Amino acid sequence: MSAEPPPPLTLSAQGSFFVGGRDVSSETLSTVPAYAPSGTVTVDQVYVRYQVPVAPARPPLVLIHGCCLTGKTWETTPDGRMGWDETFVRKGFPTYVIDQSWRGRSAGNPSAINAAKTGAAAPETLPPLFSAGHESSWAIFRFGPEYPKVFDGMQFPLEAQGEFWKQMVPDWSASLPVPNPTVPALSELAKRLKGAVLISHSQSGIYPFQVAALDRTGLRAIVALEPAACPDPAKDDLSVFKDLPILVLFADYVDESPRWAPRLAQCRAFVTTANAAGSRAELILLPEIGIHGNSHMLMQDKNSQDIADWLGGWIDKRVPPKG
Amino acid sequence: MSAEPPPPLTLSAQGSFFVGGRDVSSETLSTVPAYAPSGTVTVDQVYVRYQVPVAPARPPLVLIHGCCLTGKTWETTPDGRMGWDETFVRKGFPTYVIDQSWRGRSAGNPSAINAAKTGAAAPETLPPLFSAGHESSWAIFRFGPEYPKVFDGMQFPLEAQGEFWKQMVPDWSASLPVPNPTVPALSELAKRLKGAVLISHSQSGIYPFQVAALDRTGLRAIVALEPAACPDPAKDDLSVFKDLPILVLFADYVDESPRWAPRLAQCRAFVTTANAAGSRAELILLPEIGIHGNSHMLMQDKNSQDIADWLGGWIDKRVPPKG
Repeated sequence: MSAEPPPPLTLSAQGSFFVGGRDVSSETLSTVPAYAPSGTVTVDQVYVRYQVPVAPARPPLVLIHGCCLTGKTWETTPDGRMGWDETFVRKGFPTYVIDQSWRGRSAGNPSAINAAKTGAAAPETLPPLFSAGHESSWAIFRFGPEYPKVFDGMQFPLEAQGEFWKQMVPDWSASLPVPNPTVPALSELAKRLKGAVLISHSQSGIYPFQVAALDRTGLRAIVALEPAACPDPAKDDLSVFKDLPILVLFADYVDESPRWAPRLAQCRAFVTTANAAGSRAELILLPEIGIHGNSHMLMQDKNSQDIADWLGGWIDKRVPPKG
Repeated sequence: MSAEPPPPLTLSAQGSFFVGGRDVSSETLSTVPAYAPSGTVTVDQVYVRYQVPVAPARPPLVLIHGCCLTGKTWETTPDGRMGWDETFVRKGFPTYVIDQSWRGRSAGNPSAINAAKTGAAAPETLPPLFSAGHESSWAIFRFGPEYPKVFDGMQFPLEAQGEFWKQMVPDWSASLPVPNPTVPALSELAKRLKGAVLISHSQSGIYPFQVAALDRTGLRAIVALEPAACPDPAKDDLSVFKDLPILVLFADYVDESPRWAPRLAQCRAFVTTANAAGSRAELILLPEIGIHGNSHMLMQDKNSQDIADWLGGWIDKRVPPKG
């Protein structure tokens, strides 16, 4: 973390738009008199905010947040340092930050809740909406083995944890189909960008793999940061990953986590089997490349810029800059 | 709308943070096995994204969206033109775009929904969550007198309405206290910015006035764009607005709208009474200043840059740039 503020940031373009989305009709949009219960709403779309550097030579990156979070994940860190959205723009990559379907600025549909409120549907039909509390998130994000213990050498800025908890939002994903509507929207986005690197995190870890299974057009590489799951070598068609550069990256303290150790093992099995089927997949643990102390929220850790530097280099090697 | 892309945008800083927020305990955070039902979540905070020009001479602007929308309101328009977030940065104003409490990237709390799902609470206790459907929104946003009729000369880019509908999200505001938790958060933000112009729209129209009633520190001027309500001259203490520059701005077709005509009349009464009590309030209809054809979503209309130019000039007069 530099004491000096960074130099000004010059962008050739910035803005936002949506990909995906479909219209649905409902008789229970509202239980408030000022708004009609009947009508059409648009759902499943994905909000995208972008920043494009001047004359970018590097490929567009799409940054996809995880469970119970939004695109805020990639912006200013809880302790006020630069987020990866800006870091990678400064490195010459156009960055596209999304909010998953039904999360953040990507609309959900309140109809099932209103139907239960008015008695038109049974309460059991309410969507399985969930928030992750601070206490249970602690071990999930691997700040320590259990709340409020801290792993030795932890790089997450715990002194600013109050600002981090504010990033967490309710999660509708358990009520959505598989693949999540975010997946076809990401496929549309990658095509629109005429080639992009999809960078997923945690819950969204599997999404870029599901994009590949749907349509490889537009997908130049996959970076899965601490994915909750990798494709299943026993069930999934791994030929869709042929010749595709794939990085599966885990941070530190993984073997000390009963939640994450099996996921690492599952991803290792995927990487081995995918490569046997012609993929170009790599699995890296940060300590193996000399970066230590990282939590599950590695893009916000105090050494997040070191990881971004290494990741930018990996992308340069696997998806070379244009001439 | 220029055929040429604008020149590059140079920012001295950009990023995001939260203001406000409080911790609450719950026993019904989750009905999904992977996440614990008991724990603490943080709610009521307000997400803020900012862009600061180099050496800004003009005051910070806080852009506050209305009903059923998020901060996306102020970004790229549905038909892909520049949003006011960027327009005003290019004019030399630092811009701060928020998501209201419990909306967009500002977390809500799913506990009441989960309590009804598990039977711990009656379905009648479910929050009055609502979405505005396309058909009923049509007249509310004054695209025309009723769906799908269009007012003559309408400037909203209806050819891109599909992109606009994607901006709409469920609204929790009817379940929140008055004033909305966004109000104290805005007060905190204005203080943190050491003086800001609060620019509200529609549902949030009253918020800056409620900020003034709470604490005038940090509040340099109020711009209420098509407010759903102004303070009540018969009930509210208007002395809190003494010497405060206030602009209440309405667009076009107001008298043709049974929803909006009474609100215009109510704001006229407020302005007259507030000025008698020492305020510096103005009420302007866009046609009075030669700008015609505007909908309720005037910041997205095809002539939105004309309105921004005029508004920038109003702010320069009432909150003069620093030397």
